[in-house]
Amino acid sequence: MEALVLEKVNQIAIRDIVIDETLGPRDVRVKPVCIGICGSDVHYYLHGRIGDFVVKEPMVLGHEASGIVTEIGAEVTDLKVGDRVCMEPGIPDHNSEEYKLGIYNLDPAVRFWATPPIHGCMRESVVHPAQFTFRLPDNVSFAEGALVEPVAIGVQAAKKAQIQPGDSALVLGAGTIGIVTAMAAAASGCSNVYITDISAEKLDLVRERFGDRFTTVAHAQVGELHDAVDIVFEASGAAAAVLAMARYARPGGRIVLIGMTQDPVPVDIVGIEVKELTMYSIFRYAHVFDRTLQFISSGKIDVQPLVTHTYPFSESVAAYDFAASMPSDAIKVMIEKE
Amino acid sequence: MEALVLEKVNQIAIRDIVIDETLGPRDVRVKPVCIGICGSDVHYYLHGRIGDFVVKEPMVLGHEASGIVTEIGAEVTDLKVGDRVCMEPGIPDHNSEEYKLGIYNLDPAVRFWATPPIHGCMRESVVHPAQFTFRLPDNVSFAEGALVEPVAIGVQAAKKAQIQPGDSALVLGAGTIGIVTAMAAAASGCSNVYITDISAEKLDLVRERFGDRFTTVAHAQVGELHDAVDIVFEASGAAAAVLAMARYARPGGRIVLIGMTQDPVPVDIVGIEVKELTMYSIFRYAHVFDRTLQFISSGKIDVQPLVTHTYPFSESVAAYDFAASMPSDAIKVMIEKE
Amino acid sequence: MEALVLEKVNQIAIRDIVIDETLGPRDVRVKPVCIGICGSDVHYYLHGRIGDFVVKEPMVLGHEASGIVTEIGAEVTDLKVGDRVCMEPGIPDHNSEEYKLGIYNLDPAVRFWATPPIHGCMRESVVHPAQFTFRLPDNVSFAEGALVEPVAIGVQAAKKAQIQPGDSALVLGAGTIGIVTAMAAAASGCSNVYITDISAEKLDLVRERFGDRFTTVAHAQVGELHDAVDIVFEASGAAAAVLAMARYARPGGRIVLIGMTQDPVPVDIVGIEVKELTMYSIFRYAHVFDRTLQFISSGKIDVQPLVTHTYPFSESVAAYDFAASMPSDAIKVMIEKE
Amino acid sequence: MEALVLEKVNQIAIRDIVIDETLGPRDVRVKPVCIGICGSDVHYYLHGRIGDFVVKEPMVLGHEASGIVTEIGAEVTDLKVGDRVCMEPGIPDHNSEEYKLGIYNLDPAVRFWATPPIHGCMRESVVHPAQFTFRLPDNVSFAEGALVEPVAIGVQAAKKAQIQPGDSALVLGAGTIGIVTAMAAAASGCSNVYITDISAEKLDLVRERFGDRFTTVAHAQVGELHDAVDIVFEASGAAAAVLAMARYARPGGRIVLIGMTQDPVPVDIVGIEVKELTMYSIFRYAHVFDRTLQFISSGKIDVQPLVTHTYPFSESVAAYDFAASMPSDAIKVMIEKE
Repeated sequence: MEALVLEKVNQIAIRDIVIDETLGPRDVRVKPVCIGICGSDVHYYLHGRIGDFVVKEPMVLGHEASGIVTEIGAEVTDLKVGDRVCMEPGIPDHNSEEYKLGIYNLDPAVRFWATPPIHGCMRESVVHPAQFTFRLPDNVSFAEGALVEPVAIGVQAAKKAQIQPGDSALVLGAGTIGIVTAMAAAASGCSNVYITDISAEKLDLVRERFGDRFTTVAHAQVGELHDAVDIVFEASGAAAAVLAMARYARPGGRIVLIGMTQDPVPVDIVGIEVKELTMYSIFRYAHVFDRTLQFISSGKIDVQPLVTHTYPFSESVAAYDFAASMPSDAIKVMIEKE
Repeated sequence: MEALVLEKVNQIAIRDIVIDETLGPRDVRVKPVCIGICGSDVHYYLHGRIGDFVVKEPMVLGHEASGIVTEIGAEVTDLKVGDRVCMEPGIPDHNSEEYKLGIYNLDPAVRFWATPPIHGCMRESVVHPAQFTFRLPDNVSFAEGALVEPVAIGVQAAKKAQIQPGDSALVLGAGTIGIVTAMAAAASGCSNVYITDISAEKLDLVRERFGDRFTTVAHAQVGELHDAVDIVFEASGAAAAVLAMARYARPGGRIVLIGMTQDPVPVDIVGIEVKELTMYSIFRYAHVFDRTLQFISSGKIDVQPLVTHTYPFSESVAAYDFAASMPSDAIKVMIEKE
Repeated sequence: MEALVLEKVNQIAIRDIVIDETLGPRDVRVKPVCIGICGSDVHYYLHGRIGDFVVKEPMVLGHEASGIVTEIGAEVTDLKVGDRVCMEPGIPDHNSEEYKLGIYNLDPAVRFWATPPIHGCMRESVVHPAQFTFRLPDNVSFAEGALVEPVAIGVQAAKKAQIQPGDSALVLGAGTIGIVTAMAAAASGCSNVYITDISAEKLDLVRERFGDRFTTVAHAQVGELHDAVDIVFEASGAAAAVLAMARYARPGGRIVLIGMTQDPVPVDIVGIEVKELTMYSIFRYAHVFDRTLQFISSGKIDVQPLVTHTYPFSESVAAYDFAASMPSDAIKVMIEKE
Repeated sequence: MEALVLEKVNQIAIRDIVIDETLGPRDVRVKPVCIGICGSDVHYYLHGRIGDFVVKEPMVLGHEASGIVTEIGAEVTDLKVGDRVCMEPGIPDHNSEEYKLGIYNLDPAVRFWATPPIHGCMRESVVHPAQFTFRLPDNVSFAEGALVEPVAIGVQAAKKAQIQPGDSALVLGAGTIGIVTAMAAAASGCSNVYITDISAEKLDLVRERFGDRFTTVAHAQVGELHDAVDIVFEASGAAAAVLAMARYARPGGRIVLIGMTQDPVPVDIVGIEVKELTMYSIFRYAHVFDRTLQFISSGKIDVQPLVTHTYPFSESVAAYDFAASMPSDAIKVMIEKE
């Protein structure tokens, strides 16, 4: 089948690839329709690896997808051919201890799309467990469906944060993950959500697209939020942000670690302790795809401003090259199958 | 000073009353502007008692109030004369064990406006601790400020419910408390909020005023929500609702007890246990007035549709008589000082 | 194979029965060694049903068991032939939503030993999933291993109770479940654990066997514990205890519902609300077998005083008849395979 | 009155000092009997400062004390002259926001004994709020009463850790704080508690004095506890321990930060995130003095092995010099008034 294949570092192509997938009794076969480009996709494209995950064989990219069910397994009862769906891209082992505990995202044996050696979904069809495939409500478009994956990260962060009604929050970092975190925090009970970034251009883009939903704070002003917010979401992965994050939280407040730093970075242990802060952290998500869909369908999260650029599948290579150029006016680049 | 006084059962009047109040160093003096009529005010009017609280002496009514600061104590630094404010009507003992634990609403010695023998706020001025007096944001009106008190009950219920992002909720009872609970649940992270009542007229009123924010469910249809929602808010105080409440919650779900029943009522213990439900309960509120104000100011809770009728202070007796008639088209009756 | 079979109400016998069990790749075959008699076993014996679970075909009794592994499935790596083990008797469906959420005890499709139509373990061998089979530490005997099941109920109750270090607790009901709950509460961080019962004989037995570990409170004195404890464990299932339970908890305290009442029973809703009590409930247990084993192995829970009577398997019928007579000097009746 | 006074860095003396204390209506006057020497006392002695707290005037040392009530304020009802008591050394401002929230240990205006400029309790009498003075149960000695303060730190850590029944824990650091944390964790529901330290001598001392209660792990072997425990308590304040701490926790596990590092130190953010660890932190304690007393009185925590050396008050200077020499065979040095 036709797919967007990462051949090796710096080389991607649309070409035919043979992927042998058997439809199990609890699986569905889905034809992808919309697929977002994620920072990790671009990172594999440019560097061929993320940490210990190294691309050694040609690998299909893409893990943020919606599509149409084209075939269902014998025991699937809650989905049918023709259903519009989105897919949770990590498939855990049902027999793992983590799955049993309900923390399936932490299963070390999870098979995650476009994380080597697992193929992604930028192709004509994928076989996926029905349990990790979610029907789109009628008022949710394919493009919105493909955005459930990145937004789910924000919802996981909001879930971990133990938000109390009316909490205030500060999001450090206004990239895609920072924005979806701010969206999720606002939908999940925060009254005031502040977002900051070292880049004034990113903040301008956020203000322009999400104007009245959260408050952008220029990097130079963020120090004024001293002891000011209930929750700090660290979504930048920047060492300076991690070092400063404790300052903004009120005594007894919380921090959620989302951004990944390159290496261990200095943390102000005493600054955390004197305010008895609690720090949560997230790794992908679990149990939030359906909840994210409900937020989108009910209008509590409006994901449409996230998509700044759309390409047809036939121009996927150009889309990746555009995303790889880190344009300051882009949030999410979306690819649509014709 | 002039006040609305409950003389005895069934007899209220606007008349002069002498209330000797000293302004302590941490107190403020406030001139009330808007005051809502609460079901408990009406209950004292009609019955002269609620449980063990019996009206033995003439008592000023009213506990839902906003106003203007007219004088401040020597040590008050965060409020000033002329500030527009609302007041939390229960004043706990700072030396109680409950206050120390942060659960000051459970202090048995709390002094609560218009709960005998404590005078309420339907009068020309009240002395109140600055710590329980909250400045209204500029975009919050006096009428909205007076609604913070009833809405705070809903926010307390939402806080107790441990809402997870995207939870669904069913509110049993569509009176004022049911409505504010539904509002708070929606603002606090619930994606879908259902509300039901035995009265079709109440549901019609909710649908008309809060149309798209929550879903009204006719009494005859509520059984379809079997095992369906994450959280059930019991806001009716009706024995039939209490007996049925466990049905609607999903396995592992939660119930919040808000409504007060006349006497002990039957509960389906086994029905609760087989789903391992958790039941929270609330008594008034603590630590939520400022949060409720933030919700109103940020637009996450729009309290304006709550006010169905407004009377000038000079017509307070008529306002009480109207409220006491339990009109089906009324939610909140508001009194405004001229 | 030879088994203890409940033929129909009031009729049990040791006889041969054919049970066709295939050893799956993740299963083990176990030869039971010690099997406790549970109140539910006796109830099926005497009444042929518990609620909607009706014995329609001859059924092997027993679900509290330890034994020796005699065969392992092809994919089992963490158990081997000869291992001394105990078994968690409920087998959930790995594909259920509840299993995915980590609350597998709430899976409606769970297959539980000796709950019709599922055979129990009073027989020569049982096939069981390795994931629900736990190796006994060297210092835990077969009899202690068979007690993990009832003690796990207490540990589940203690887990739900959100015990804070040094909490005080009152257990209502001094039957087996009340005792294991008191044991688990004491091991799980409660400093003072009180236990009461309407029967002075039961309390005498508890005092004699568990003397210094918890404090027995005569029924006539329990009212003195007004507003006194952090946690009330309702382990009696008695209507009078359920009606009174809120009295003993301090403001902001907790109740755990363990005992099952015959029908819905009156609950003092207002009494719960004015103290903002939280009520948890349990259904069997999840994720606590290994933890219970660690408590026993580390000496934090000493289960030996639970066993008041032991019978050889050949005298199982007599053992059941003895248990059915509800002797006041018995806690747990244990059956040992020769 | 006679007191042990820190005159300036490196100079302490027993001498007369005038301290003018008024007994307020809710205060008690206490004659100290036993007073432990804390690492912070020694640090002020040797360095004259801890962070921003600088000794500028002569200051009485000591904050771990038990004693006898010699006078009570007019409104004190729950204590009487002659009562044996221990005192919580931090006095918060009842009007602070933190006190209102129930997190009084985080009140920035807290007045804490022997933290400049507040005098400590190594003197003939102290005036203290009754609310922060706790009667010793009859079976708790003065020496044990003086140990409530350090043990309370461990109980605060155990409280924060959200211990589930049967959790396993690893304590990093076997100094006094590490030991009291291990004691509190074991009493609060942990089944297996491991403790490690870079010093073999410290571990030997722990093994000798607390042998069977927790498991000492040599520094060279602690790596074997990879992904192994539910909770890691960081009680060393050592940079290497902070960097490594995430390794030992299981996926979904918890870390509690107790030790204070000199400066910000590197933390393995990604190592924390891939296991979605939660990190709690503590600052002193709140609401745990009475709970710690109950643990000691009930025998769940045996504090006696903590005291390795005892000096009479008249030899306080020698006691401080001994403690300042950091002897490897000492845990707690206790001073007793004659």
